[in-house]
Amino acid sequence: MRRLSIIGLGLMGGSLGLAAKARGLPWHVAGYTRTPARGRLALKRGAVDSLHRTPAEAVREADVVVYCAPILSLPALVRESRSGLKPGALVTDVGSTKVFLDTELPALLKDSGALFVGSHPLAGSEQQGIEAAHADLYEGAVVVVTPTRDTPLKAVKAARTFWRKLGAVVYEMDAREHDRVMARTSHLPHMVASLLAVTAARTGRPEQLAPFCGTGFADTSRVAAGSPEVWHDIVRTNRGNVAEELRAYKVQVDRLIGLLDQGDFEGIQHFLENGRAARQSLLKGRGKGRE
Amino acid sequence: MRRLSIIGLGLMGGSLGLAAKARGLPWHVAGYTRTPARGRLALKRGAVDSLHRTPAEAVREADVVVYCAPILSLPALVRESRSGLKPGALVTDVGSTKVFLDTELPALLKDSGALFVGSHPLAGSEQQGIEAAHADLYEGAVVVVTPTRDTPLKAVKAARTFWRKLGAVVYEMDAREHDRVMARTSHLPHMVASLLAVTAARTGRPEQLAPFCGTGFADTSRVAAGSPEVWHDIVRTNRGNVAEELRAYKVQVDRLIGLLDQGDFEGIQHFLENGRAARQSLLKGRGKGRE
Repeated sequence: MRRLSIIGLGLMGGSLGLAAKARGLPWHVAGYTRTPARGRLALKRGAVDSLHRTPAEAVREADVVVYCAPILSLPALVRESRSGLKPGALVTDVGSTKVFLDTELPALLKDSGALFVGSHPLAGSEQQGIEAAHADLYEGAVVVVTPTRDTPLKAVKAARTFWRKLGAVVYEMDAREHDRVMARTSHLPHMVASLLAVTAARTGRPEQLAPFCGTGFADTSRVAAGSPEVWHDIVRTNRGNVAEELRAYKVQVDRLIGLLDQGDFEGIQHFLENGRAARQSLLKGRGKGRE
Repeated sequence: MRRLSIIGLGLMGGSLGLAAKARGLPWHVAGYTRTPARGRLALKRGAVDSLHRTPAEAVREADVVVYCAPILSLPALVRESRSGLKPGALVTDVGSTKVFLDTELPALLKDSGALFVGSHPLAGSEQQGIEAAHADLYEGAVVVVTPTRDTPLKAVKAARTFWRKLGAVVYEMDAREHDRVMARTSHLPHMVASLLAVTAARTGRPEQLAPFCGTGFADTSRVAAGSPEVWHDIVRTNRGNVAEELRAYKVQVDRLIGLLDQGDFEGIQHFLENGRAARQSLLKGRGKGRE
C-alpha cells in the first residue's frame, strides 16, 4: 500500500491522515473536501500531502479510499469519484450506521473493480471539524467492519490490515446486527442526552440555571453537542432500531414515575442499584473506543 | 475560627478536611465516622487532626460543624451530637436536597444555641469514600446556602465566609427553589443515566456489548455509578420535583418517538439542533461546579 485517499476532512478524516503520519506509515495521503478553508487547514496541519479539486482526482491511484462524510452524502460522493478508482482498491467509510451503506454503495461501485466493505470506527467526540482532529483518535479504538455475503474476502482482510495499522481493534459484524447494537449503545445515549437538554431548558431562562448545571449535567448531556447534520443522517438511516430502543427506554421511565408516585422507595433503591450494576457490566473491560 | 468538626468522612467530608489543610487554614479538624477503617485512612491522609468515638465528642468546642452523611441519616447524627455543641457554633451540611433538612434540623438544634443554615456544595462525583477524597473538590465549586425566615443573619454570614475560605462560590436560595432547580439540573440527569444503563442491559449479556459501549455511553451514564444509598435519600426527599421533571422528560420522549414513527426527519433535525442549543445555553459561563 502506497496511497491513501480521504474524502471528507472533518474530525474523522482529518484524524485519519494525522494518525497515518504520526505512526510513520509510508503513504501518500490525498484529500478532498468541499470546503476550501478546511482543506487548507488539513494541508497546514499535515493531515494530507495533497489536496484535489474533485473526488475523482483525489481517489486516483489510491490503494485505500476512505469516505469520511455524513452518511447520506456518501452515495453522491461515491458517484462523483468512482471514475477515478483503481481496480482492486479498497473502498470503505466511517459511517455510524451500516445497513444503508451496505445496501447503497456496492451497487454504485459494481463496475469500478474496487472492493467495498463498510467500517465503523467507534471513535469521535462531540467536537467537529479538522480543528478538533488529532493523531490518536483511532488508537485503541474499536472498528467494526460489516461484510455482506457478497463482500470479497480480500476486501475484509485489507480493511482489517488497514485499521490495525492505525492502532484500532477490529471486530466483524453483520450490518443489521451492528445497527441494532449501535442503536442501543450509541444512538440511544445521544437521544437521551438531547432529550435531557431540551427538557432542562423547557421553561425559564436557561442561562440562569447555568451555575447549577455541574459536571453531572454536563457529562450526561455531552453527546448532545454533536453535529445535528451527522446525527440526523444516523437517526434517519437507523430509524426503526432507534425507535425500538426509545420505546424500551420509555417503559423504564414509566416504571420509575410509578415508583415515585407510589412512594416505593425500596423499588427506587433497587432501580438505582440495578442502574449502577448494569453500567458496570456494560463497560466491563471495554476498549478505549469512543462514542 | 479555630476548630472545624466534620461528621462523616466520605468523599465530601474527607475532601473538606483535605481542602482546609491544603489551603493552610489554621484550624484543628476533628472528625467522626461510624466506620473505623475510614477514620484511620482519614487520619493517615491528613484529612483530620483528631478522631472521636462519638459525634458529641467530635463536635465539642467546634466553631463550625459540617455534617457530611446521606440526608436521611442526618437527624439521628444531629440528635447524637447536639449535647456537645458550643452555643454560637455554625452548624451546616452538604446534603443535595434542602427542604427536608431545613424542616427537620432547626427543631432538633433549638436548645443547643448553635446556628444552623443548610448548604449544598455542587461538588462530588460518582466516586465514593475517603479514598476518592481530594483537596480541590470545593475549589471554584458552587455552594448554595438555603436560609429560612428564621435563620439568624450571622449564620448565613458565617456559612458564606466558611465556604469562601475553601475556595467555593456561594449562592443564596430558598430551599424550595433549590430543590426544584436541582431536580432539573442534577436529579433528572441521574435518573436519565440510570434509566439508560438499565435499558441498555435489559436483554442479552451486557458484557458482550462492552466493546461497543464507547465514551458516549460511558459519559451519558456516568452519574449512574453514584452511591445508591446517597441517591435513594436524594430522590426520597425530593420525590415530587423529580417526578415532575420525569413527566416533562417523558413528554419529550413521546414527541421524539412520534417524529421517528412519522418519519419526520425535518422535525428530528430541529430536535437535534434544539438539544445542542439548549445544552450550550445551560452550560454558558458555568463555574467549575461538579455534579
